[in-house]
Amino acid sequence: MAKFYGIGVGPGDPDLLTVKATKLIQQLDVLYTPKAHHGGVSVAEKIAQPYLPADLEIKQRHFPMVKDLATKEKSWTAIASEIVSDVQAGRDVGFLTLGDPSVYSTYSYILARVQDQIAVETIAGISSFSQIAASLSIPLVLDDELLTVVPATTDEATLKSALALNDNLVIMKVATHWQMVYQLLAAAGLLDQAIVVANASMAGQEITPVQQLTADSKLPYFATMLVKKHQRLVE
Amino acid sequence: MAKFYGIGVGPGDPDLLTVKATKLIQQLDVLYTPKAHHGGVSVAEKIAQPYLPADLEIKQRHFPMVKDLATKEKSWTAIASEIVSDVQAGRDVGFLTLGDPSVYSTYSYILARVQDQIAVETIAGISSFSQIAASLSIPLVLDDELLTVVPATTDEATLKSALALNDNLVIMKVATHWQMVYQLLAAAGLLDQAIVVANASMAGQEITPVQQLTADSKLPYFATMLVKKHQRLVE
Repeated sequence: MAKFYGIGVGPGDPDLLTVKATKLIQQLDVLYTPKAHHGGVSVAEKIAQPYLPADLEIKQRHFPMVKDLATKEKSWTAIASEIVSDVQAGRDVGFLTLGDPSVYSTYSYILARVQDQIAVETIAGISSFSQIAASLSIPLVLDDELLTVVPATTDEATLKSALALNDNLVIMKVATHWQMVYQLLAAAGLLDQAIVVANASMAGQEITPVQQLTADSKLPYFATMLVKKHQRLVE
Repeated sequence: MAKFYGIGVGPGDPDLLTVKATKLIQQLDVLYTPKAHHGGVSVAEKIAQPYLPADLEIKQRHFPMVKDLATKEKSWTAIASEIVSDVQAGRDVGFLTLGDPSVYSTYSYILARVQDQIAVETIAGISSFSQIAASLSIPLVLDDELLTVVPATTDEATLKSALALNDNLVIMKVATHWQMVYQLLAAAGLLDQAIVVANASMAGQEITPVQQLTADSKLPYFATMLVKKHQRLVE
């Protein structure tokens, strides 16, 4: 039976795809790849490039990166309906997604629109925060500790509570509200227990202890912070 | 230069290793594999079996699963010192670990004992909670939501706070304190928003909505729970 596969390509290094993902890509009839800008490059497609068979039909589709929900929903619904048609025509359809398809992924919105109509399978991928910890050779979480993953776009009170409750924090999209995050860390005395990693496992990977930054620093878009309350991360 | 590699083998399916992990295993001189019981099987080694070259030297080492910290530390220190000797003798040494080496992994204790003496590199793996979400085709976390990973072995007050603060919770080792977890979920009205997955991606995988369980249910050791506050997981 034809199926729809959501495939995580991991954080950037093509070697960080799973064997399962690379095998699946070989067997597909159609592959959808998301790109943020018209005429732009699909980052996920670029990562999976070494595994794409020459004759695979690739459908690059544009996912608008805007605040307006109605605009985004319109594009998700159109792409979902195209995917349903392909699967109902008997084709095995893949959809590439950066990192892990279950973690802050646009794939989830496509999934929600198709899963009552066609068979689906999700292939886990290495998330950016898992790769960040690996690239630093630092544990994310140990023993009875807690780990929270939180986007910097949440409100200040929630971020403050998360920082108070947890032993370890991953703060995603940290560039977006950098000043707020920096000030909360400073107030909690955690500046030397936090590290920012940008473009993990990609060519432009940058690792920066927060002690080397200020509240006014400008960070790259794909920057994620790891905060460990029980471990100094700078000497 | 010879190096020590911590290699995540993922949750159970050999296809869930990364391409990077499978390439690395081919190039090693020695591979350490952990097992919980003397004379037992190394679960991580079994998962990586399809990728092990016939002539690879494998050192199965026993990691005692006991409460006594001194006993555990003694074995970590002995194994770490053996690894340091191997690398200092010019051999590339691997160490297999279930799931992701950065998430509740014994590898972290070995790492802490060797990283000042020899070169190390950590290879991320698919964590059990990432695979659980994938196997259910449910997002772990979306938009501005928070995700917390917490072991059921934490105290009740912390678990209650975590449940109050977060949109999504992964509760590890949920069999250990099942009654407490069940009662907290019931009190929070979340029984139909929680699912237990045991042995994710392995032969004995079991998926059970919490609505089908009681406070007295017995769960398998490798059972993990996913709680989503904003999504009913049973009809």
